[in-house]
Amino acid sequence: MVSVSSAPRRLALRVQYDGTDFVGFQRQARGRSVQSVLEQAILELTGEREIHLHAAGRTDSGVHALGQVVTVDTECTIPTDKFPFALNAKLPEDVCITGAKEVPFSFHPRYDADGRVYHYRIDNQPFPNILYRRYAWHIRPRLDLESMYQAAQPLIGSHDFSSFAAAGSPMGPPIRELRRIEWTAEPPLIRCEVEANAFLYRMVRNIIGTLVEVGLGRLRPEEVAAILAARDRATAGPTAPPHGLCLVEVRYQGKSLFAES
Amino acid sequence: MVSVSSAPRRLALRVQYDGTDFVGFQRQARGRSVQSVLEQAILELTGEREIHLHAAGRTDSGVHALGQVVTVDTECTIPTDKFPFALNAKLPEDVCITGAKEVPFSFHPRYDADGRVYHYRIDNQPFPNILYRRYAWHIRPRLDLESMYQAAQPLIGSHDFSSFAAAGSPMGPPIRELRRIEWTAEPPLIRCEVEANAFLYRMVRNIIGTLVEVGLGRLRPEEVAAILAARDRATAGPTAPPHGLCLVEVRYQGKSLFAES
Repeated sequence: MVSVSSAPRRLALRVQYDGTDFVGFQRQARGRSVQSVLEQAILELTGEREIHLHAAGRTDSGVHALGQVVTVDTECTIPTDKFPFALNAKLPEDVCITGAKEVPFSFHPRYDADGRVYHYRIDNQPFPNILYRRYAWHIRPRLDLESMYQAAQPLIGSHDFSSFAAAGSPMGPPIRELRRIEWTAEPPLIRCEVEANAFLYRMVRNIIGTLVEVGLGRLRPEEVAAILAARDRATAGPTAPPHGLCLVEVRYQGKSLFAES
Repeated sequence: MVSVSSAPRRLALRVQYDGTDFVGFQRQARGRSVQSVLEQAILELTGEREIHLHAAGRTDSGVHALGQVVTVDTECTIPTDKFPFALNAKLPEDVCITGAKEVPFSFHPRYDADGRVYHYRIDNQPFPNILYRRYAWHIRPRLDLESMYQAAQPLIGSHDFSSFAAAGSPMGPPIRELRRIEWTAEPPLIRCEVEANAFLYRMVRNIIGTLVEVGLGRLRPEEVAAILAARDRATAGPTAPPHGLCLVEVRYQGKSLFAES
Protein backbone atom coordinates (compact mmCIF):
# COMPACT_ATOMS: atom_id res chain seq x y z
CA MET A 1 0.00 0.00 0.00
CA VAL A 2 1.25 3.41 -1.01
CA SER A 3 -0.40 5.97 1.22
CA VAL A 4 1.29 9.09 -0.15
CA SER A 5 -0.59 10.51 -3.09
CA SER A 6 0.45 12.86 -5.83
CA ALA A 7 -1.39 14.78 -8.54
CA PRO A 8 -3.69 12.57 -10.61
CA ARG A 9 -2.25 11.23 -13.85
CA ARG A 10 -3.57 9.07 -16.66
CA LEU A 11 -1.19 6.25 -17.53
CA ALA A 12 -1.27 4.25 -20.73
CA LEU A 13 0.12 0.75 -20.21
CA ARG A 14 1.21 -1.79 -22.79
CA VAL A 15 -0.02 -5.22 -21.66
CA GLN A 16 0.88 -8.77 -22.70
CA TYR A 17 -1.19 -11.80 -21.76
CA ASP A 18 -1.49 -15.46 -22.54
CA GLY A 19 -5.23 -15.70 -23.18
CA THR A 20 -5.45 -19.45 -22.55
CA ASP A 21 -6.68 -19.26 -18.99
CA PHE A 22 -8.87 -16.14 -19.30
CA VAL A 23 -12.53 -15.70 -20.22
CA GLY A 24 -11.36 -12.78 -22.35
CA PHE A 25 -10.18 -9.24 -21.69
CA GLN A 26 -13.43 -7.84 -20.41
CA ARG A 27 -14.82 -8.45 -16.94
CA GLN A 28 -17.58 -11.09 -16.98
CA ALA A 29 -20.14 -12.18 -14.40
CA ARG A 30 -18.09 -15.34 -13.93
CA GLY A 31 -14.55 -16.37 -14.67
CA ARG A 32 -11.09 -14.86 -14.68
CA SER A 33 -10.80 -11.86 -17.01
CA VAL A 34 -7.65 -9.91 -17.85
CA GLN A 35 -9.45 -6.72 -16.80
CA SER A 36 -10.30 -7.99 -13.32
CA VAL A 37 -6.78 -9.38 -12.77
CA LEU A 38 -5.27 -6.03 -13.83
CA GLU A 39 -7.68 -3.95 -11.74
CA GLN A 40 -7.03 -6.10 -8.68
CA ALA A 41 -3.24 -5.76 -9.06
CA ILE A 42 -3.45 -1.98 -9.60
CA LEU A 43 -5.65 -1.57 -6.51
CA GLU A 44 -3.13 -3.54 -4.46
CA LEU A 45 -0.19 -1.59 -5.83
CA THR A 46 -1.55 1.93 -5.64
CA GLY A 47 -3.88 1.72 -2.69
CA GLU A 48 -6.52 3.56 -4.72
CA ARG A 49 -10.12 2.96 -3.64
CA GLU A 50 -11.36 2.18 -7.11
CA ILE A 51 -9.97 1.81 -10.56
CA HIS A 52 -11.58 2.07 -13.97
CA LEU A 53 -9.60 0.59 -16.75
CA HIS A 54 -10.15 1.29 -20.44
CA ALA A 55 -8.66 -0.91 -23.15
CA ALA A 56 -7.98 -0.55 -26.86
CA GLY A 57 -9.56 -3.89 -27.70
CA ARG A 58 -11.78 -6.42 -25.97
CA THR A 59 -10.13 -9.66 -26.97
CA ASP A 60 -12.17 -12.88 -26.75
CA SER A 61 -11.52 -15.84 -24.51
CA GLY A 62 -8.34 -17.64 -25.59
CA VAL A 63 -7.01 -14.72 -27.65
CA HIS A 64 -3.52 -13.49 -26.67
CA ALA A 65 -1.97 -10.03 -26.61
CA LEU A 66 1.56 -8.73 -26.87
CA GLY A 67 0.50 -5.10 -27.39
CA GLN A 68 -2.85 -4.45 -25.73
CA VAL A 69 -3.09 -0.83 -24.52
CA VAL A 70 -5.03 0.16 -21.40
CA THR A 71 -5.35 3.39 -19.47
CA VAL A 72 -5.74 3.90 -15.79
CA ASP A 73 -5.99 7.04 -13.66
CA THR A 74 -3.94 7.13 -10.50
CA GLU A 75 -2.71 9.42 -7.74
CA CYS A 76 0.07 7.07 -6.65
CA THR A 77 3.64 8.37 -6.41
CA ILE A 78 5.30 5.55 -8.34
CA PRO A 79 7.26 7.12 -11.23
CA THR A 80 5.85 6.24 -14.64
CA ASP A 81 9.01 4.42 -15.79
CA LYS A 82 9.00 2.23 -12.66
CA PHE A 83 5.29 1.47 -12.89
CA PRO A 84 5.59 -1.65 -15.13
CA PHE A 85 8.13 -3.32 -12.80
CA ALA A 86 6.09 -2.48 -9.69
CA LEU A 87 2.85 -3.75 -11.22
CA ASN A 88 4.45 -6.90 -12.67
CA ALA A 89 5.43 -7.90 -9.14
CA LYS A 90 1.68 -8.03 -8.32
CA LEU A 91 0.57 -9.79 -11.51
CA PRO A 92 0.23 -13.53 -12.19
CA GLU A 93 2.70 -15.04 -14.66
CA ASP A 94 0.29 -14.92 -17.60
CA VAL A 95 -0.04 -11.10 -17.59
CA CYS A 96 2.87 -8.68 -17.92
CA ILE A 97 3.21 -4.91 -18.38
CA THR A 98 5.94 -3.94 -20.88
CA GLY A 99 5.56 -0.19 -21.07
CA ALA A 100 4.00 2.85 -19.37
CA LYS A 101 3.52 6.41 -20.55
CA GLU A 102 1.70 9.42 -19.12
CA VAL A 103 -1.04 10.59 -21.46
CA PRO A 104 -3.50 13.52 -21.34
CA PHE A 105 -6.87 12.96 -19.63
CA SER A 106 -8.46 13.42 -23.03
CA PHE A 107 -6.75 10.27 -24.32
CA HIS A 108 -8.88 7.15 -24.82
CA PRO A 109 -7.12 3.92 -25.83
CA ARG A 110 -9.96 2.66 -28.01
CA TYR A 111 -11.47 5.81 -29.52
CA ASP A 112 -8.11 7.39 -30.30
CA ALA A 113 -6.58 4.26 -31.88
CA ASP A 114 -6.27 4.44 -35.66
CA GLY A 115 -4.58 1.11 -36.30
CA ARG A 116 -4.58 -2.44 -34.94
CA VAL A 117 -2.18 -5.23 -35.85
CA TYR A 118 -3.00 -8.89 -35.18
CA HIS A 119 -1.02 -12.07 -35.80
CA TYR A 120 -2.65 -15.38 -36.53
CA ARG A 121 -0.52 -18.55 -36.30
CA ILE A 122 -1.18 -21.89 -37.96
CA ASP A 123 0.77 -25.10 -37.22
CA ASN A 124 0.52 -26.90 -40.55
CA GLN A 125 1.82 -30.46 -40.28
CA PRO A 126 0.49 -33.99 -39.74
CA PHE A 127 0.98 -33.95 -35.95
CA PRO A 128 0.85 -30.70 -33.96
CA ASN A 129 4.00 -29.39 -32.30
CA ILE A 130 3.02 -29.67 -28.66
CA LEU A 131 4.86 -26.49 -27.74
CA TYR A 132 2.66 -24.44 -30.12
CA ARG A 133 -0.66 -25.92 -29.01
CA ARG A 134 -1.66 -22.87 -26.94
CA TYR A 135 -0.61 -20.37 -29.62
CA ALA A 136 -1.32 -21.85 -33.06
CA TRP A 137 -4.22 -23.51 -34.89
CA HIS A 138 -3.19 -27.01 -35.87
CA ILE A 139 -4.24 -27.92 -39.42
CA ARG A 140 -3.25 -31.36 -40.64
CA PRO A 141 -3.55 -31.14 -44.47
CA ARG A 142 -0.97 -29.07 -46.30
CA LEU A 143 -2.39 -25.58 -46.99
CA ASP A 144 -1.97 -23.99 -50.41
CA LEU A 145 -0.45 -20.70 -49.27
CA GLU A 146 -0.28 -19.24 -52.78
CA SER A 147 -4.08 -19.57 -53.16
CA MET A 148 -4.64 -18.06 -49.72
CA TYR A 149 -2.44 -15.11 -50.63
CA GLN A 150 -4.33 -14.59 -53.89
CA ALA A 151 -7.72 -14.90 -52.20
CA ALA A 152 -6.81 -12.25 -49.64
CA GLN A 153 -6.03 -9.50 -52.16
CA PRO A 154 -9.61 -8.27 -52.80
CA LEU A 155 -10.03 -7.76 -49.04
CA ILE A 156 -7.34 -5.07 -48.94
CA GLY A 157 -8.79 -1.55 -48.83
CA SER A 158 -11.94 0.06 -47.42
CA HIS A 159 -14.92 -2.26 -47.62
CA ASP A 160 -18.15 -3.22 -45.95
CA PHE A 161 -16.95 -6.31 -44.05
CA SER A 162 -20.42 -7.51 -42.93
CA SER A 163 -19.69 -10.97 -44.40
CA PHE A 164 -16.86 -11.32 -41.88
CA ALA A 165 -18.56 -9.80 -38.83
CA ALA A 166 -20.04 -11.95 -36.09
CA ALA A 167 -23.34 -11.08 -34.49
CA GLY A 168 -22.52 -8.81 -31.58
CA SER A 169 -20.59 -6.25 -33.62
CA PRO A 170 -21.19 -2.70 -32.46
CA MET A 171 -23.77 -0.60 -34.26
CA GLY A 172 -22.63 1.79 -36.94
CA PRO A 173 -21.47 1.33 -40.50
CA PRO A 174 -19.53 -1.94 -40.99
CA ILE A 175 -16.88 -0.25 -43.14
CA ARG A 176 -13.27 -0.90 -42.18
CA GLU A 177 -9.98 -0.17 -43.91
CA LEU A 178 -7.95 -3.38 -44.14
CA ARG A 179 -4.40 -2.18 -44.76
CA ARG A 180 -2.51 -5.41 -45.21
CA ILE A 181 -2.64 -9.19 -44.89
CA GLU A 182 0.89 -10.61 -44.94
CA TRP A 183 1.82 -14.28 -44.88
CA THR A 184 5.10 -15.63 -43.55
CA ALA A 185 5.88 -19.32 -43.94
CA GLU A 186 8.36 -20.71 -41.42
CA PRO A 187 7.51 -24.38 -41.99
CA PRO A 188 5.67 -25.94 -40.31
CA LEU A 189 4.44 -22.59 -38.95
CA ILE A 190 2.43 -20.12 -41.01
CA ARG A 191 2.01 -16.63 -39.62
CA CYS A 192 -0.49 -14.11 -40.91
CA GLU A 193 -0.15 -10.43 -39.99
CA VAL A 194 -3.28 -8.33 -40.47
CA GLU A 195 -3.62 -4.58 -40.02
CA ALA A 196 -6.72 -2.38 -40.20
CA ASN A 197 -7.87 0.93 -38.81
CA ALA A 198 -10.24 -1.18 -36.70
CA PHE A 199 -11.91 -4.58 -36.89
CA LEU A 200 -15.52 -5.72 -36.59
CA TYR A 201 -16.28 -8.36 -33.97
CA ARG A 202 -14.41 -11.59 -34.85
CA MET A 203 -13.43 -10.15 -38.23
CA VAL A 204 -9.83 -11.43 -38.13
CA ARG A 205 -10.89 -14.94 -37.15
CA ASN A 206 -13.63 -14.99 -39.81
CA ILE A 207 -11.21 -13.84 -42.51
CA ILE A 208 -8.63 -16.45 -41.45
CA GLY A 209 -11.30 -19.18 -41.31
CA THR A 210 -12.40 -18.30 -44.83
CA LEU A 211 -8.87 -18.12 -46.25
CA VAL A 212 -8.09 -21.52 -44.69
CA GLU A 213 -11.06 -22.94 -46.62
CA VAL A 214 -9.32 -21.66 -49.75
CA GLY A 215 -6.00 -23.17 -48.61
CA LEU A 216 -7.73 -26.53 -48.13
CA GLY A 217 -9.24 -26.34 -51.64
CA ARG A 218 -12.83 -26.10 -50.37
CA LEU A 219 -13.26 -22.57 -51.77
CA ARG A 220 -11.72 -21.14 -54.94
CA PRO A 221 -9.58 -18.01 -54.40
CA GLU A 222 -11.86 -15.91 -56.62
CA GLU A 223 -14.90 -16.76 -54.46
CA VAL A 224 -13.59 -14.58 -51.63
CA ALA A 225 -14.34 -11.36 -53.57
CA ALA A 226 -17.93 -12.57 -54.04
CA ILE A 227 -18.22 -13.35 -50.31
CA LEU A 228 -17.05 -9.81 -49.47
CA ALA A 229 -19.55 -8.33 -51.97
CA ALA A 230 -22.43 -10.40 -50.54
CA ARG A 231 -22.26 -8.56 -47.17
CA ASP A 232 -23.77 -11.67 -45.56
CA ARG A 233 -22.01 -13.63 -42.80
CA ALA A 234 -23.62 -16.85 -44.02
CA THR A 235 -21.53 -16.77 -47.22
CA ALA A 236 -18.11 -16.80 -45.53
CA GLY A 237 -16.15 -19.66 -43.96
CA PRO A 238 -16.10 -20.75 -40.31
CA THR A 239 -14.52 -18.75 -37.49
CA ALA A 240 -10.89 -19.70 -36.86
CA PRO A 241 -10.24 -20.78 -33.24
CA PRO A 242 -9.17 -18.05 -30.80
CA HIS A 243 -5.86 -19.51 -29.62
CA GLY A 244 -4.03 -18.73 -32.90
CA LEU A 245 -4.84 -15.02 -32.56
CA CYS A 246 -2.71 -12.35 -30.90
CA LEU A 247 -3.16 -8.55 -30.69
CA VAL A 248 0.39 -7.38 -31.34
CA GLU A 249 0.10 -3.61 -31.65
CA VAL A 250 -2.32 -0.71 -31.32
CA ARG A 251 -1.40 2.43 -33.25
CA TYR A 252 -2.13 6.07 -32.52
CA GLN A 253 -1.54 8.58 -35.31
CA GLY A 254 0.09 5.74 -37.20
CA LYS A 255 2.55 4.57 -34.57
CA SER A 256 2.96 2.81 -31.25
CA LEU A 257 2.61 4.91 -28.10
CA PHE A 258 5.68 3.22 -26.69
CA ALA A 259 9.31 3.40 -27.69
CA GLU A 260 10.58 0.02 -28.82
CA SER A 261 12.15 -1.91 -25.97
CA MET B 1 -10.70 -52.17 -24.40
CA VAL B 2 -9.40 -54.34 -27.20
CA SER B 3 -10.05 -57.95 -26.28
CA VAL B 4 -8.66 -59.60 -29.39
CA SER B 5 -4.93 -60.16 -29.08
CA SER B 6 -2.24 -60.81 -31.64
CA ALA B 7 1.38 -61.90 -31.46
CA PRO B 8 3.45 -59.78 -29.08
CA ARG B 9 5.37 -56.90 -30.62
CA ARG B 10 7.71 -54.24 -29.33
CA LEU B 11 6.73 -50.75 -30.48
CA ALA B 12 9.01 -47.74 -30.42
CA LEU B 13 7.00 -44.51 -30.08
CA ARG B 14 8.12 -40.94 -30.68
CA VAL B 15 6.64 -38.78 -27.91
CA GLN B 16 6.20 -35.02 -27.52
CA TYR B 17 5.32 -33.37 -24.24
CA ASP B 18 5.07 -29.95 -22.69
CA GLY B 19 7.03 -30.55 -19.47
CA THR B 20 5.50 -27.60 -17.58
CA ASP B 21 2.91 -29.58 -15.68
CA PHE B 22 4.93 -32.76 -15.09
CA VAL B 23 7.29 -33.81 -12.29
CA GLY B 24 9.52 -35.13 -15.09
CA PHE B 25 9.49 -38.14 -17.38
CA GLN B 26 10.02 -40.80 -14.78
CA ARG B 27 7.35 -42.09 -12.41
CA GLN B 28 7.72 -40.57 -8.93
CA ALA B 29 6.16 -41.39 -5.59
CA ARG B 30 4.04 -38.25 -5.97
CA GLY B 31 3.01 -36.06 -8.83
CA ARG B 32 2.11 -36.39 -12.49
CA SER B 33 4.89 -37.96 -14.56
CA VAL B 34 4.94 -38.42 -18.33
CA GLN B 35 5.64 -42.11 -17.79
CA SER B 36 2.55 -42.68 -15.63
CA VAL B 37 0.31 -40.70 -18.00
CA LEU B 38 1.59 -42.75 -20.96
CA GLU B 39 1.29 -46.08 -19.16
CA GLN B 40 -2.25 -45.29 -18.07
CA ALA B 41 -3.30 -44.36 -21.61
CA ILE B 42 -1.67 -47.47 -23.11
CA LEU B 43 -3.40 -49.71 -20.55
CA GLU B 44 -6.73 -48.13 -21.43
CA LEU B 45 -6.13 -48.42 -25.16
CA THR B 46 -4.76 -51.93 -25.37
CA GLY B 47 -6.49 -53.65 -22.46
CA GLU B 48 -3.14 -55.16 -21.42
CA ARG B 49 -2.87 -56.09 -17.75
CA GLU B 50 0.42 -54.34 -17.24
CA ILE B 51 2.80 -52.21 -19.21
CA HIS B 52 6.49 -51.51 -18.77
CA LEU B 53 7.74 -48.53 -20.60
CA HIS B 54 11.37 -47.79 -21.37
CA ALA B 55 12.54 -44.35 -22.47
CA ALA B 56 15.63 -42.96 -24.18
CA GLY B 57 16.03 -40.16 -21.66
CA ARG B 58 14.67 -39.31 -18.24
CA THR B 59 13.98 -35.63 -18.62
CA ASP B 60 13.66 -33.51 -15.47
CA SER B 61 10.59 -31.66 -14.26
CA GLY B 62 9.80 -28.76 -16.59
CA VAL B 63 11.92 -30.07 -19.49
CA HIS B 64 10.05 -30.54 -22.77
CA ALA B 65 10.38 -33.13 -25.51
CA LEU B 66 9.58 -33.15 -29.20
CA GLY B 67 11.47 -36.39 -29.90
CA GLN B 68 11.52 -38.59 -26.79
CA VAL B 69 11.60 -42.29 -27.74
CA VAL B 70 9.90 -44.95 -25.64
CA THR B 71 9.25 -48.65 -26.19
CA VAL B 72 6.31 -50.73 -25.09
CA ASP B 73 5.44 -54.39 -25.61
CA THR B 74 1.89 -55.15 -26.63
CA GLU B 75 -0.33 -57.94 -27.94
CA CYS B 76 -3.05 -55.56 -29.13
CA THR B 77 -4.29 -55.78 -32.70
CA ILE B 78 -4.05 -52.06 -33.52
CA PRO B 79 -1.84 -51.70 -36.61
CA THR B 80 1.45 -49.95 -35.91
CA ASP B 81 0.72 -47.00 -38.23
CA LYS B 82 -2.65 -46.38 -36.51
CA PHE B 83 -1.22 -46.66 -33.00
CA PRO B 84 -0.27 -42.96 -32.58
CA PHE B 85 -3.77 -41.74 -33.53
CA ALA B 86 -5.46 -44.31 -31.28
CA LEU B 87 -3.21 -43.51 -28.33
CA ASN B 88 -3.46 -39.71 -28.82
CA ALA B 89 -7.22 -40.03 -28.36
CA LYS B 90 -6.51 -41.30 -24.80
CA LEU B 91 -3.78 -38.78 -23.94
CA PRO B 92 -4.13 -35.36 -22.30
CA GLU B 93 -3.36 -32.33 -24.46
CA ASP B 94 0.21 -31.93 -23.18
CA VAL B 95 1.41 -35.34 -24.45
CA CYS B 96 1.24 -36.48 -28.06
CA ILE B 97 2.60 -39.47 -30.02
CA THR B 98 3.98 -38.52 -33.44
CA GLY B 99 5.36 -41.84 -34.69
CA ALA B 100 5.35 -45.58 -34.11
CA LYS B 101 7.57 -48.33 -35.46
CA GLU B 102 7.88 -52.04 -34.72
CA VAL B 103 11.35 -52.88 -33.40
CA PRO B 104 13.03 -56.18 -32.41
CA PHE B 105 12.69 -57.33 -28.80
CA SER B 106 16.43 -56.80 -28.45
CA PHE B 107 15.98 -53.03 -29.02
CA HIS B 108 16.37 -50.73 -26.00
CA PRO B 109 15.65 -47.02 -26.50
CA ARG B 110 18.33 -45.85 -24.06
CA TYR B 111 21.13 -48.40 -24.41
CA ASP B 112 20.93 -48.50 -28.22
CA ALA B 113 20.84 -44.70 -28.69
CA ASP B 114 24.08 -43.23 -30.01
CA GLY B 115 23.03 -39.58 -30.32
CA ARG B 116 20.84 -37.08 -28.49
CA VAL B 117 19.90 -33.59 -29.70
CA TYR B 118 18.59 -30.93 -27.33
CA HIS B 119 17.45 -27.35 -27.92
CA TYR B 120 17.80 -24.65 -25.34
CA ARG B 121 15.85 -21.39 -25.83
CA ILE B 122 16.62 -18.00 -24.32
CA ASP B 123 14.30 -14.97 -24.52
CA ASN B 124 16.81 -12.11 -24.42
CA GLN B 125 15.05 -8.77 -24.05
CA PRO B 126 14.09 -6.32 -21.30
CA PHE B 127 10.60 -7.77 -20.76
CA PRO B 128 9.83 -11.44 -21.45
CA ASN B 129 7.53 -12.33 -24.31
CA ILE B 130 4.64 -13.85 -22.40
CA LEU B 131 4.01 -16.47 -25.08
CA TYR B 132 7.53 -17.89 -24.60
CA ARG B 133 7.43 -18.03 -20.80
CA ARG B 134 6.86 -21.78 -20.63
CA TYR B 135 9.53 -22.55 -23.27
CA ALA B 136 12.40 -20.08 -22.93
CA TRP B 137 14.68 -18.72 -20.19
CA HIS B 138 14.15 -14.98 -19.92
CA ILE B 139 17.40 -13.04 -19.55
CA ARG B 140 17.10 -9.29 -19.33
CA PRO B 141 20.64 -7.98 -20.15
CA ARG B 142 21.80 -8.32 -23.73
CA LEU B 143 23.96 -11.47 -24.10
CA ASP B 144 27.24 -11.33 -26.02
CA LEU B 145 26.58 -14.22 -28.39
CA GLU B 146 29.99 -13.99 -30.04
CA SER B 147 31.72 -14.65 -26.68
CA MET B 148 29.35 -17.51 -25.91
CA TYR B 149 30.11 -19.08 -29.28
CA GLN B 150 33.86 -18.73 -28.69
CA ALA B 151 33.64 -20.11 -25.15
CA ALA B 152 31.77 -23.19 -26.37
CA GLN B 153 34.45 -24.33 -28.84
CA PRO B 154 36.77 -26.16 -26.35
CA LEU B 155 33.80 -28.25 -25.23
CA ILE B 156 33.41 -29.86 -28.66
CA GLY B 157 34.88 -33.37 -28.80
CA SER B 158 35.34 -36.24 -26.34
CA HIS B 159 36.04 -34.99 -22.84
CA ASP B 160 35.57 -35.77 -19.17
CA PHE B 161 32.54 -33.52 -18.48
CA SER B 162 32.57 -33.90 -14.66
CA SER B 163 32.60 -30.12 -14.27
CA PHE B 164 29.19 -30.01 -15.94
CA ALA B 165 27.61 -33.07 -14.29
CA ALA B 166 25.18 -32.75 -11.40
CA ALA B 167 25.31 -35.11 -8.47
CA GLY B 168 23.07 -38.01 -9.37
CA SER B 169 24.82 -38.83 -12.64
CA PRO B 170 25.05 -42.55 -13.27
CA MET B 171 28.25 -44.37 -12.34
CA GLY B 172 30.83 -45.03 -15.01
CA PRO B 173 33.36 -42.87 -16.74
CA PRO B 174 32.12 -39.28 -17.22
CA ILE B 175 33.44 -39.12 -20.78
CA ARG B 176 31.01 -37.91 -23.41
CA GLU B 177 31.45 -36.91 -27.04
CA LEU B 178 29.93 -33.46 -27.57
CA ARG B 179 29.44 -33.24 -31.33
CA ARG B 180 28.16 -29.71 -31.77
CA ILE B 181 26.86 -26.59 -30.06
CA GLU B 182 25.12 -24.35 -32.57
CA TRP B 183 23.65 -20.93 -31.88
CA THR B 184 20.83 -19.37 -33.83
CA ALA B 185 19.82 -15.81 -33.11
CA GLU B 186 16.26 -14.90 -34.05
CA PRO B 187 16.04 -11.72 -31.94
CA PRO B 188 14.85 -11.58 -29.26
CA LEU B 189 15.08 -15.40 -29.20
CA ILE B 190 18.39 -17.27 -29.01
CA ARG B 191 18.31 -20.98 -29.70
CA CYS B 192 21.14 -23.35 -28.88
CA GLU B 193 21.24 -26.82 -30.43
CA VAL B 194 23.50 -29.33 -28.67
CA GLU B 195 24.30 -32.87 -29.78
CA ALA B 196 26.30 -35.58 -28.02
CA ASN B 197 26.46 -39.37 -28.01
CA ALA B 198 24.95 -39.06 -24.52
CA PHE B 199 24.81 -36.49 -21.72
CA LEU B 200 25.63 -36.66 -18.05
CA TYR B 201 22.88 -35.66 -15.61
CA ARG B 202 21.99 -31.95 -16.15
CA MET B 203 24.98 -31.55 -18.47
CA VAL B 204 23.13 -29.47 -21.07
CA ARG B 205 21.69 -27.12 -18.45
CA ASN B 206 25.07 -26.77 -16.74
CA ILE B 207 26.82 -25.98 -20.02
CA ILE B 208 24.14 -23.41 -20.92
CA GLY B 209 24.28 -21.86 -17.44
CA THR B 210 28.06 -21.50 -17.76
CA LEU B 211 27.95 -20.07 -21.29
CA VAL B 212 25.33 -17.55 -20.17
CA GLU B 213 27.79 -16.37 -17.48
CA VAL B 214 30.17 -15.70 -20.37
CA GLY B 215 27.45 -13.93 -22.35
CA LEU B 216 26.78 -11.69 -19.33
CA GLY B 217 30.49 -10.84 -19.00
CA ARG B 218 30.85 -12.59 -15.64
CA LEU B 219 33.25 -15.19 -17.06
CA ARG B 220 35.82 -14.71 -19.81
CA PRO B 221 35.39 -17.05 -22.81
CA GLU B 222 38.83 -18.60 -22.26
CA GLU B 223 37.89 -19.62 -18.70
CA VAL B 224 35.53 -22.30 -19.99
CA ALA B 225 38.42 -24.51 -21.18
CA ALA B 226 39.90 -24.30 -17.65
CA ILE B 227 36.53 -25.21 -16.12
CA LEU B 228 36.34 -28.28 -18.36
CA ALA B 229 39.91 -29.28 -17.42
CA ALA B 230 39.19 -28.88 -13.68
CA ARG B 231 36.72 -31.80 -13.72
CA ASP B 232 35.02 -30.18 -10.74
CA ARG B 233 31.36 -29.13 -10.74
CA ALA B 234 32.14 -26.28 -8.33
CA THR B 235 34.14 -24.45 -11.01
CA ALA B 236 31.31 -24.14 -13.55
CA GLY B 237 28.37 -21.74 -13.69
CA PRO B 238 24.85 -22.27 -12.34
CA THR B 239 22.33 -24.70 -13.82
CA ALA B 240 20.08 -23.10 -16.43
CA PRO B 241 16.36 -23.46 -15.62
CA PRO B 242 14.57 -26.52 -17.03
CA HIS B 243 11.83 -24.79 -19.03
CA GLY B 244 14.20 -23.62 -21.81
CA LEU B 245 15.29 -27.20 -22.53
CA CYS B 246 13.75 -29.58 -25.05
CA LEU B 247 14.83 -33.09 -26.14
CA VAL B 248 14.33 -32.84 -29.90
CA GLU B 249 15.78 -36.08 -31.27
CA VAL B 250 17.28 -39.40 -30.24
CA ARG B 251 19.49 -41.08 -32.83
CA TYR B 252 20.17 -44.76 -33.48
CA GLN B 253 23.07 -45.62 -35.76
CA GLY B 254 23.30 -41.93 -36.53
CA LYS B 255 19.70 -41.28 -37.50
CA SER B 256 16.14 -40.98 -36.28
CA LEU B 257 14.12 -44.21 -36.01
CA PHE B 258 11.21 -42.44 -37.63
CA ALA B 259 10.72 -41.19 -41.17
CA GLU B 260 10.26 -37.43 -41.23
CA SER B 261 6.59 -36.51 -41.13
